[in-house]
Amino acid sequence: MRITAPQWTLPAAMLCAAASGLPEVTNSDLLNDEVIASDWLNYHGGYSGQRHSLLDQIDRGNASSMRLEWVFQEKISEKFETTPLVHDGVMYITVPPGDVYALDAATGARLWRYSRRLPPKLIACCGLVNRGLAIAGDRLFMATLDAYTIALDRKTGRLLWETELIDYSLGYSGTHAPLVVKDMVMVGTAGGEYGIRGFIDAFDIETGERRWRFYTVPGPGEFGHDTWAGDSWKTGGASVWITPSYDPKLDMVYWGIGNPGPDWNGDVRLGDNLYSDSVVALEADTGKRKWHFQFTPHDVHDWDATQVMVLLDSEYRGEVRRLLVTANRNGFLYLLDRATGEFLKATQFVKQTWAVGISEEGRPIRRPGMEPSAEGVEVFPAVAGGTNWMSPAYNPDTGLLYVSCREGSAMYYKGETEYRPGTRYWGSMFINEPTMHNWFGAVRAFDPVSGERIWEHRLFQPAWAGLLSTAGKLVFAGTSDGFFKALDAESGNELWRINLGARVQASPMTYLGGGRQMVAVASGGALFVFGLPQGRAN
Amino acid sequence: MRITAPQWTLPAAMLCAAASGLPEVTNSDLLNDEVIASDWLNYHGGYSGQRHSLLDQIDRGNASSMRLEWVFQEKISEKFETTPLVHDGVMYITVPPGDVYALDAATGARLWRYSRRLPPKLIACCGLVNRGLAIAGDRLFMATLDAYTIALDRKTGRLLWETELIDYSLGYSGTHAPLVVKDMVMVGTAGGEYGIRGFIDAFDIETGERRWRFYTVPGPGEFGHDTWAGDSWKTGGASVWITPSYDPKLDMVYWGIGNPGPDWNGDVRLGDNLYSDSVVALEADTGKRKWHFQFTPHDVHDWDATQVMVLLDSEYRGEVRRLLVTANRNGFLYLLDRATGEFLKATQFVKQTWAVGISEEGRPIRRPGMEPSAEGVEVFPAVAGGTNWMSPAYNPDTGLLYVSCREGSAMYYKGETEYRPGTRYWGSMFINEPTMHNWFGAVRAFDPVSGERIWEHRLFQPAWAGLLSTAGKLVFAGTSDGFFKALDAESGNELWRINLGARVQASPMTYLGGGRQMVAVASGGALFVFGLPQGRAN
Repeated sequence: MRITAPQWTLPAAMLCAAASGLPEVTNSDLLNDEVIASDWLNYHGGYSGQRHSLLDQIDRGNASSMRLEWVFQEKISEKFETTPLVHDGVMYITVPPGDVYALDAATGARLWRYSRRLPPKLIACCGLVNRGLAIAGDRLFMATLDAYTIALDRKTGRLLWETELIDYSLGYSGTHAPLVVKDMVMVGTAGGEYGIRGFIDAFDIETGERRWRFYTVPGPGEFGHDTWAGDSWKTGGASVWITPSYDPKLDMVYWGIGNPGPDWNGDVRLGDNLYSDSVVALEADTGKRKWHFQFTPHDVHDWDATQVMVLLDSEYRGEVRRLLVTANRNGFLYLLDRATGEFLKATQFVKQTWAVGISEEGRPIRRPGMEPSAEGVEVFPAVAGGTNWMSPAYNPDTGLLYVSCREGSAMYYKGETEYRPGTRYWGSMFINEPTMHNWFGAVRAFDPVSGERIWEHRLFQPAWAGLLSTAGKLVFAGTSDGFFKALDAESGNELWRINLGARVQASPMTYLGGGRQMVAVASGGALFVFGLPQGRAN
Repeated sequence: MRITAPQWTLPAAMLCAAASGLPEVTNSDLLNDEVIASDWLNYHGGYSGQRHSLLDQIDRGNASSMRLEWVFQEKISEKFETTPLVHDGVMYITVPPGDVYALDAATGARLWRYSRRLPPKLIACCGLVNRGLAIAGDRLFMATLDAYTIALDRKTGRLLWETELIDYSLGYSGTHAPLVVKDMVMVGTAGGEYGIRGFIDAFDIETGERRWRFYTVPGPGEFGHDTWAGDSWKTGGASVWITPSYDPKLDMVYWGIGNPGPDWNGDVRLGDNLYSDSVVALEADTGKRKWHFQFTPHDVHDWDATQVMVLLDSEYRGEVRRLLVTANRNGFLYLLDRATGEFLKATQFVKQTWAVGISEEGRPIRRPGMEPSAEGVEVFPAVAGGTNWMSPAYNPDTGLLYVSCREGSAMYYKGETEYRPGTRYWGSMFINEPTMHNWFGAVRAFDPVSGERIWEHRLFQPAWAGLLSTAGKLVFAGTSDGFFKALDAESGNELWRINLGARVQASPMTYLGGGRQMVAVASGGALFVFGLPQGRAN
């Protein structure tokens, strides 16, 4: 007979070496995240959403020497979408559905684990996922699948506070990495397929008290309420499931807002349906709307504005402007003035058939006959969009924006749906299968101002993996056929790749572990960390 | 909304590139497995059970440069204990509970998958595991958890035949990699904790017809039947769950036999209980017993003779002998003459307290008071033994036998158990917990003839991972805290290690992939393959 402990249980001694005396993460750290290259203090690697690191030990000359440093594994039946945070030699990751681990960032040794007790019947359209944490002071913050925001002690994993967003049984959940701004942590609600009414909350990081709430579907008397016919605003969706960007100088937080509900039948919600499929700029201290821009008014194709809002300053028509650039699921790459919300430009970045173009005001000019119908209609892009939630990256040195693009069409159908709390509120379905033959993926580099495509790296399938840019002039990319790659940021040429055995469905990050640059990415049931052989860095 | 296919599903195109025109595995290949170093054609890497490869591209000088080549991942909730086979550039692995994959051995690309439909209520004491395959001609062979032996087409994964061993609902199962000898495939039955009566079957590799059966518990009129009091032979256990070794010249197959049942209460089965805890040498063509040797007569500590039987020829007392060496769970390292079964020597290789010594005939001289009791008794080694099923390795160049050793004690209790078909038949329980403070592991090198310990590499915990020896004078070893290591075969010094994030609970192997030496090991939910950077081999 063989008697063994569960294989996945690592020795207790590896779990009890709790880190102590770690320096706190200050507001100054968060503001300078993009220049504190050794750490990774924010889901995007910084407030700007650029996912660019100043680390350059790994570069185009040595990337092909990269090798595995360590692996974290857990039994995971869900999609593993976390982007780790790293501070002072400790890595923090979320593991679905509700765990948090602290690991030695150099070795992967386990320091502690927090495991949230979740109710048995969670409601999530697309997997019991979590994308990561926020960090501030001696604390970590997580949005949970049962619609709480929680704070953990960074040194021990102990729960410090938890505040309910709203009753999860109505279809609400938390999946994105929160954003810390000053003394607040901000979280939005997922659940756009369940007839929720989306909102964004800010909490005091010390006490967990709510500071403000912004409804992503305006209520009676609020601006935009008249964009929802009848009572449709009550079940309008407009969820939030990706981390916003933040401009400290303007003190504005840029939130990408999800699809209106029901997804594919717009008849029951006539109007533009604000702020679905919009970017909303909120004043950090108050949660008040400064401006908004809607990419897809009255959306009937499920095109959440969930791609990251990338903030960058660049010359535009002879003037340096504070810009916001984002590739939208609807197939267009948008350039906005992030101080005012002014629409500057839109460029098609994947094949699309639903719009003739974008008007000077930024409003799509629709092609007739592209709305879902009972018989079905084929539309480019497919329901997952020209890109989706996977992070883009922007390299200030190359001046290029990197986007993981999804090419292909889907059949869209319209049907009747009655709202019942906590159940699917879709208005029929899209069908991918008939047209999957035309699907492929690509990592593409764009001039974010002109919208011009500079290079393309083709992928066998559309990817669900985000991108990472580094000062080593590399772009790291994952693929749906299980590869993790390093591309030349200037040419898109592949410099290195490794078969990780399972789809990469997360956005990579980089940090210094033991003084050496390491690159981490989740794939399947594992987090892989790569670096250069000792002595191989420049 | 986000819509994604299951994360773990890799593209269909990766599965349909079925290998074709692969050369068949001949009997000559199997006989020369240990010199066809590019392949790995047998669970042990060869009939001798030495798990030694002639590959030497990776050696003591460059092992520290090893890096990840590729990863195979699947959602696995069980222990992943497979040792891959490799032939002609294709790797074949089992994935618990009942899948087989063919992979490109150089890249990990998936060629095909076979998935066995298993009944819902499988009976297995210690996990729904499988340790690997056998290969011959154009076929692969697997023992299944529902107690079948099956043959698959190596090029497509198509089922060619399946033959039932016996009704699995009585507690029987198949878990070990079968052994092919000539035109037969041999499989033994697991289930020693369920009051089974163990046996070994040989099947025609073409038709699946049974050629012979050997009962590991002798029936009425058979030699050894009188070693079982009353009807106790009917539920005597003596399971088979590890691949035997084979000597083609002597035409004998060496099977290690499992514990008697019930495990910890011997009162109901007075006598020596042959062939439990024995090695049995069977004539390959007939399944007739040539000789046997029992390591632990009337075992009451659950010490299956499940460690691999390693065959080697060496001088012993001035004469070159055909030897069999094996480290037994009971704490002694045994040296036998494998032609005759003659006992030559036993040396204690871990701390043990149950025996004063071993007699000149090879019979343990028991220390009084070390039998399980109602009050419990502490005994070294613990129930898992001084080693267990994880493979040892023998390097003919160093002349050293490498064993993964488990140090520590357990509390053993005795109780009553009534036999009910298909349920646990244990006779009380052992308790590990009270004495786990004294547990540790070690990879140790022994002179197999003298039994002298030459070196030791200490491990934080007792390991469940097997060893691999290579002509590069390396010993590869996994650990329970998730490391995979390369040790110097002459000194035990650690030359390289990597944190794989989950317990290694399998035995590694090595092969040529694209002309380069690669080392593969399962850990957690993944199979990892390592090699040298291009151009780094000698």
